[in-house]
Amino acid sequence: MPNISQRGVEMPASPIRKLAPLADAAKQRGVHVYHLNIGQPDLPTPRVALDAIRNIDHTVLEYSPSQGYRSYREKLVGYYKKYDINLTADDIIITTGGSEAVLFAFLSCLNPGDEIIVPEPAYANYMAFAISAGAVIRTVTTTIEEGFSLPKVEKFEELINERTKAILICNPNNPTGYLYTRREMNQIRDIVKKYDLYLFSDEVYREFIYTGSPYISACHLEGIEQNVVLIDSVSKRYSECGIRIGALITKNAEVRSAVMKFCQARLSPPLIGQIAAEASLDASEEYARETYDEYVERRKCLIDGLNRIPGVYSPIPMGAFYTVAKLPVDDADKFCAWCLEEFAYEGQTVMMAPASGFYTTPGLGKNEVRVAYVLKKEDLAKALTVLAKALEAYPGRMV
Amino acid sequence: MPNISQRGVEMPASPIRKLAPLADAAKQRGVHVYHLNIGQPDLPTPRVALDAIRNIDHTVLEYSPSQGYRSYREKLVGYYKKYDINLTADDIIITTGGSEAVLFAFLSCLNPGDEIIVPEPAYANYMAFAISAGAVIRTVTTTIEEGFSLPKVEKFEELINERTKAILICNPNNPTGYLYTRREMNQIRDIVKKYDLYLFSDEVYREFIYTGSPYISACHLEGIEQNVVLIDSVSKRYSECGIRIGALITKNAEVRSAVMKFCQARLSPPLIGQIAAEASLDASEEYARETYDEYVERRKCLIDGLNRIPGVYSPIPMGAFYTVAKLPVDDADKFCAWCLEEFAYEGQTVMMAPASGFYTTPGLGKNEVRVAYVLKKEDLAKALTVLAKALEAYPGRMV
Repeated sequence: MPNISQRGVEMPASPIRKLAPLADAAKQRGVHVYHLNIGQPDLPTPRVALDAIRNIDHTVLEYSPSQGYRSYREKLVGYYKKYDINLTADDIIITTGGSEAVLFAFLSCLNPGDEIIVPEPAYANYMAFAISAGAVIRTVTTTIEEGFSLPKVEKFEELINERTKAILICNPNNPTGYLYTRREMNQIRDIVKKYDLYLFSDEVYREFIYTGSPYISACHLEGIEQNVVLIDSVSKRYSECGIRIGALITKNAEVRSAVMKFCQARLSPPLIGQIAAEASLDASEEYARETYDEYVERRKCLIDGLNRIPGVYSPIPMGAFYTVAKLPVDDADKFCAWCLEEFAYEGQTVMMAPASGFYTTPGLGKNEVRVAYVLKKEDLAKALTVLAKALEAYPGRMV
Repeated sequence: MPNISQRGVEMPASPIRKLAPLADAAKQRGVHVYHLNIGQPDLPTPRVALDAIRNIDHTVLEYSPSQGYRSYREKLVGYYKKYDINLTADDIIITTGGSEAVLFAFLSCLNPGDEIIVPEPAYANYMAFAISAGAVIRTVTTTIEEGFSLPKVEKFEELINERTKAILICNPNNPTGYLYTRREMNQIRDIVKKYDLYLFSDEVYREFIYTGSPYISACHLEGIEQNVVLIDSVSKRYSECGIRIGALITKNAEVRSAVMKFCQARLSPPLIGQIAAEASLDASEEYARETYDEYVERRKCLIDGLNRIPGVYSPIPMGAFYTVAKLPVDDADKFCAWCLEEFAYEGQTVMMAPASGFYTTPGLGKNEVRVAYVLKKEDLAKALTVLAKALEAYPGRMV
């Protein structure tokens, strides 16, 4: 039997995957599990998107163009304009989810061994795509104590060497909900410019910014237009994660040309997903407002609730629909498993993502969890009660 | 401006891509272009698939499981059983098209520098996925004179060294339409076994076998069950290339476990595509028969027609919906471009894929083209007339 590949061995398993069988077992015991672990919004997909799918008039579900339908890309130009991001349809390549955009950005821009600097905690799958492409992720650490703000320039410069080829940010951030300030974005711009790096910027949560702070896109930064590769997706924005439609956007024609070769190899992005995504751009203002207002309330409910539990601390996330919270436990991996395996309060328990999976530096995030607020407020409130009870009962409680 | 990656440079452009702007220009001059170049069937998608899409009752288009819906995988078990391929749902991983199955097979099984032996001419995108994974394609040449039958074992063994990790076949074959015989499949089995290689077998055209010859799947070969990775797709079978649903199938649990990590990183295959694919399995026998009969007639029309043109030769393809034909021209790349740029007969011309793009050995396929029969018979007949006239008029005609 031949061996699997080294990268097949090295690929990280999803931080949640280890817990999934425990959650299944809990459910089989009749325990209700509140899923605070996932990034799957429960809010409805826009009516216009569902209607577009129901009304497809195709008789052949044919390949779409490798770069995506022009009509969709042209309509996206108008969408980005609202955020002061000025593009042409040619700058936009439609991908199979934001995931494929990350992978193709890495494959097109990085050689095996090239290094990407990423602030940690970070979305765990960046690591998986880096391993797929043979690239190496180096992390600058942000801390809950400093609200996950960006470390000083020196921390980046310490990591920069001849293999450093890119900086990758997620803004607003998954898992922390942090939104980079203008000062921080300018700092990133200066490093990118000074060392001529790529800036991969994953901005799929731009709709979900809850403070008065401005959204500074990587595309707003002057003087590094040829360095920026924007990663986007309609998944979270329109609660349509399943359609697998994202985008890779760059003003750099050479990068686009390389990316297009990877796009042509995989033939085309999903056809019906593009129809849904294009229709979603016509979702009513009311849809956007209702979605937004709902997250604002959930965020308040969750963060207030977390900070009321003795020993728990969460900064106030400025965007996205996650927070990283500190718990009074010896080991969040153990605690999250214990909640599913050994604990129930009135027949209920909680599933959370241990934050260790979002750090590459060993030992970090040991007493932190990522909590998503993609549940109804009533359920969030109940989940918070269950979490408080679990922390009281947990044998590995610290403090 | 940072450099793009070496693999971004090395990735082959699609063999058809270079011709696409010429075809567009011809159309703008008012010339009708018969597309003999594409692998996009014109036949209708099954009604049941379209109905399933139109009747979706989701309110949230959520992520599907990373390995695909269990209901779909279970139904596929029954489908494969009809071909004497005995699987469980756990052996099947749903991918975003057959393309992703090839990429994930390479990423999971091969290290950078590992070699895959592929009979050429071969589907051009295998090379692209190999470059994505850092793997190296080595080819054994099959020739139009020998009807593209498999070369002797020695030809394989000449290429085998310590980096050889896999054999990749496409059966029935794109681009040649060749169907491997039982003897040839046994020969492959013996090599795979002797050198403990992976056997990647792309069998997306199994529905389209036009002779009495038996279909021997890689999954039928005894003694190499742990070496076989089957690549599949519903694209061609149900004329639904746009939904992007394929599968990676293997009895090798270690490979599946590695592949699953790549699957989890990209989160999920397309949701709506899976709904369509699952419904397609209920397409009527009539649908399958009509599709099949249509290809049988087109094949006859095309192959007879080609062989009637002076100086043209095409073997009789046993499967798929392509043939590789030999033309009396100096250079098929030039001829195909000339047809689009300089030729028209009664306001019509033809677009074909030069076969050079399907060979890696330089110079091979220089007077060959791939011709697809995914047009109506009437159009095929007209296209053949146009081709005959083009060959008469072409200044680089040989003979």
